[in-house]
Formats: sequence, C-alpha cells, structure tokens
Amino acid sequence: MECIFCKIIAGEIPSDTIYKDEEFIAFRDIQPQAPVHVLIVPVNHIVSVNDLGEKDASMIGRLILLAKRIAEQEHIAESGYRLVINCGSEGGQVVPHLHLHLMGGIRLNDRMG
Amino acid sequence: MECIFCKIIAGEIPSDTIYKDEEFIAFRDIQPQAPVHVLIVPVNHIVSVNDLGEKDASMIGRLILLAKRIAEQEHIAESGYRLVINCGSEGGQVVPHLHLHLMGGIRLNDRMG
Repeated sequence: MECIFCKIIAGEIPSDTIYKDEEFIAFRDIQPQAPVHVLIVPVNHIVSVNDLGEKDASMIGRLILLAKRIAEQEHIAESGYRLVINCGSEGGQVVPHLHLHLMGGIRLNDRMG
Repeated sequence: MECIFCKIIAGEIPSDTIYKDEEFIAFRDIQPQAPVHVLIVPVNHIVSVNDLGEKDASMIGRLILLAKRIAEQEHIAESGYRLVINCGSEGGQVVPHLHLHLMGGIRLNDRMG
C-alpha cells in the first residue's frame, strides 16, 4: 500500500482529520490555498473520476452532500465556498486517490485554474 | 423566470449546447478559462449546493458521471481536467442556478482559487 491517502485512512500517517465514517474521511490540506481547505476522500481507493462507474453515482452524491455539511460545520456555508475535483495530470491531480477540495473563508479568485 | 440558465434550458437564450437530456444540459462557457470549458447544469432550478438534500444524492452523482463522459467526448479524459462547483458569493458563483464547470485542454494552474 503506497497510497498516501490510504495510509492516512489507515492511521499510519498523521492528519488533521475533522470527519470520518465508514465511507469518507475529511482532513485539512497540508498546503492550504484558503483559510478553510479540506480534502474529502472516499475510504475506498478509487484513482480518479475517470474510474467511476454507474455503481458509484450515489457514493459521489453523498460525497458532495458531505462537503455541504462540512462547509456548514466550518461556518462558510453562507459566505460561500468552492468544490474542486482534479483529474489527471493537466487537471492538477497530485495524489492518485479520488478526493474533493472544499475551499472557503476568503473571497476566492474568479480564475479556477 | 429570470434565471439565465433556465432561459437557456428553455431555448429562449442561445447557447453552444453540446449535450441535453431530461435531467441535464451542457453548454460551453461564454467566458472560457481553458480551451475546454463546459458548464453542466441540472434542468431543475436548484440555486446551489447549499440547497441540496439527501434526495438529490443520486442526481449529483449522475452529474459527476456525465462530466466524466463529456471529458471523454471532448478528448481531455486522458490528459486531465478539473471539475468545479462554486457556491455563493465568496465561492465565486455568478449564476444562482447550480452548475458544474468542466475545464481542460491545457495544464491548469495548481492554484484553484
């Protein structure tokens, strides 16, 4: 198991975890681009959006709904936030384990990339 | 009906539409930030992620899966792409009708906002 997110999920690498259940873990990005920058990660090792199939639709839906709830918990639901999923090299995906960025707490730049 | 996306869906405002079914429409952003910049929009008028509930989980999952298929169609699946959902003012949401940005065709900036 070489995946850094799988190691975080397994507790082998420390993280600033703010949420965990059987399906997802959420922890703060170690290189935050905004005052609130949380990564929300499915526990199952899925590499990227390219690897999702019809069977994953409800899981992905729950991922977005969890991001909404964490935004509330982080007190950025009303001020606003950005959800980002990078896929592949040109998309800027660094860790090859599907994850969603939740960013907020500041007026984000209109440029998204 | 004042919503510009609802008017696009109704065909009252022209758009460069590349996909449409009963649940979603996809059209090119008129102010693209990348060579490929497509907006994918639920036909139902939902303002933002903040307005999603448990009942919407599978719809949101299908939205992400549709983005994956359009990335393939646009020949950016392998090179990579970014999916962005802005929510509210500080998130940079311009049109108050839920939409997902699919961006690719160039190496996107590591900064996501």
